[in-house]
Amino acid sequence: MKILVVGGTGVIGSAVVKELSARHTVIVAGHTQGDFLVDISSQDSIAALYKAVGPVDAVVCTAGSVTFKKFNEMKPEDYLLGLNNKLMGQIHLVLLGREFVNPQGSFTLTSGILSQEPIATGSCASMVNAALEGFIIGAAIEMPREIRINVVSPTVVLESMPKYAPYFRGFKPVPVEDVALAFSRSVEGLLTGQVLQVK
Amino acid sequence: MKILVVGGTGVIGSAVVKELSARHTVIVAGHTQGDFLVDISSQDSIAALYKAVGPVDAVVCTAGSVTFKKFNEMKPEDYLLGLNNKLMGQIHLVLLGREFVNPQGSFTLTSGILSQEPIATGSCASMVNAALEGFIIGAAIEMPREIRINVVSPTVVLESMPKYAPYFRGFKPVPVEDVALAFSRSVEGLLTGQVLQVK
Repeated sequence: MKILVVGGTGVIGSAVVKELSARHTVIVAGHTQGDFLVDISSQDSIAALYKAVGPVDAVVCTAGSVTFKKFNEMKPEDYLLGLNNKLMGQIHLVLLGREFVNPQGSFTLTSGILSQEPIATGSCASMVNAALEGFIIGAAIEMPREIRINVVSPTVVLESMPKYAPYFRGFKPVPVEDVALAFSRSVEGLLTGQVLQVK
Repeated sequence: MKILVVGGTGVIGSAVVKELSARHTVIVAGHTQGDFLVDISSQDSIAALYKAVGPVDAVVCTAGSVTFKKFNEMKPEDYLLGLNNKLMGQIHLVLLGREFVNPQGSFTLTSGILSQEPIATGSCASMVNAALEGFIIGAAIEMPREIRINVVSPTVVLESMPKYAPYFRGFKPVPVEDVALAFSRSVEGLLTGQVLQVK
């Protein structure tokens, strides 16, 4: 398969690239490095990426930013960052990618455990992650040309604990390789419309 | 209690007003009629509403629009309507309302069954409804002054079946009075961070 991994230079993305590269041709797109550069908050940038990469069998996205801030300090524009980046960035990858994904291909997006398990400062992430899970449920049943779509919802990963541990007390972190397996299950299996939780 | 019902002139909103008016002072806000007019897609309009109404014990929102269109025809701007109206309209009601809701008061929003059970043309609704459910989970644990927040997620209501039946084949509709009870449970009970499904 020819697989485009957007965000393939990040902590989770790198592990996904490693897992899939063993058996497939993987193209890495990143915000600041990779085979191609892309800013998922820009539809023009996404369109240019697809034009450069051409048809693919699978698109994986492990990119996306949200605001982490105390709810008392959250303003409308703080939610917009998450909506424009992690949510609509990934949805635009799907909408603009529909014509570039081969029949029976797939999209695999990334949400996160905060859609189910809230933490302090996480109301934007909870909103965005849940929205992605709702979107793939709705989109899966109408996908053209037998294209599949799933979302991987990981808990905090072991490799990010030095940075995130204070926000995720009591959460059992998972090795990033375990998260990569869920992406493999989505890309290489036949599931569609599924939220693949890794926790 | 003094309760503001935004969207209180609609099918569900009217039933909520009827249920709550028996025991409380209910103020109805609507897009085209009601005690006050409000356009939830406008932050200025929401701010003006709160300024006119003053402090309340509970805010209920049963308003919000999304796009229903085949996924193949859905464009980025079609998702924006739902994000700007049903999602951010309700979230702005919460954000701008934080200072107007009395201690131990509550917010009750409206999502819908499509967050869990997709239908054709419903990918925007599935996304928006799920986002609202994620938001209240995240916001509930950080709400100031013991303010509570829940969301009611109804299936299609009996009274809307003349219009919506073709989209909801196989769904068992519920009487709108049953949906109103869930709002009562949120407003008059002590739940917080809950998705109150009515199906």
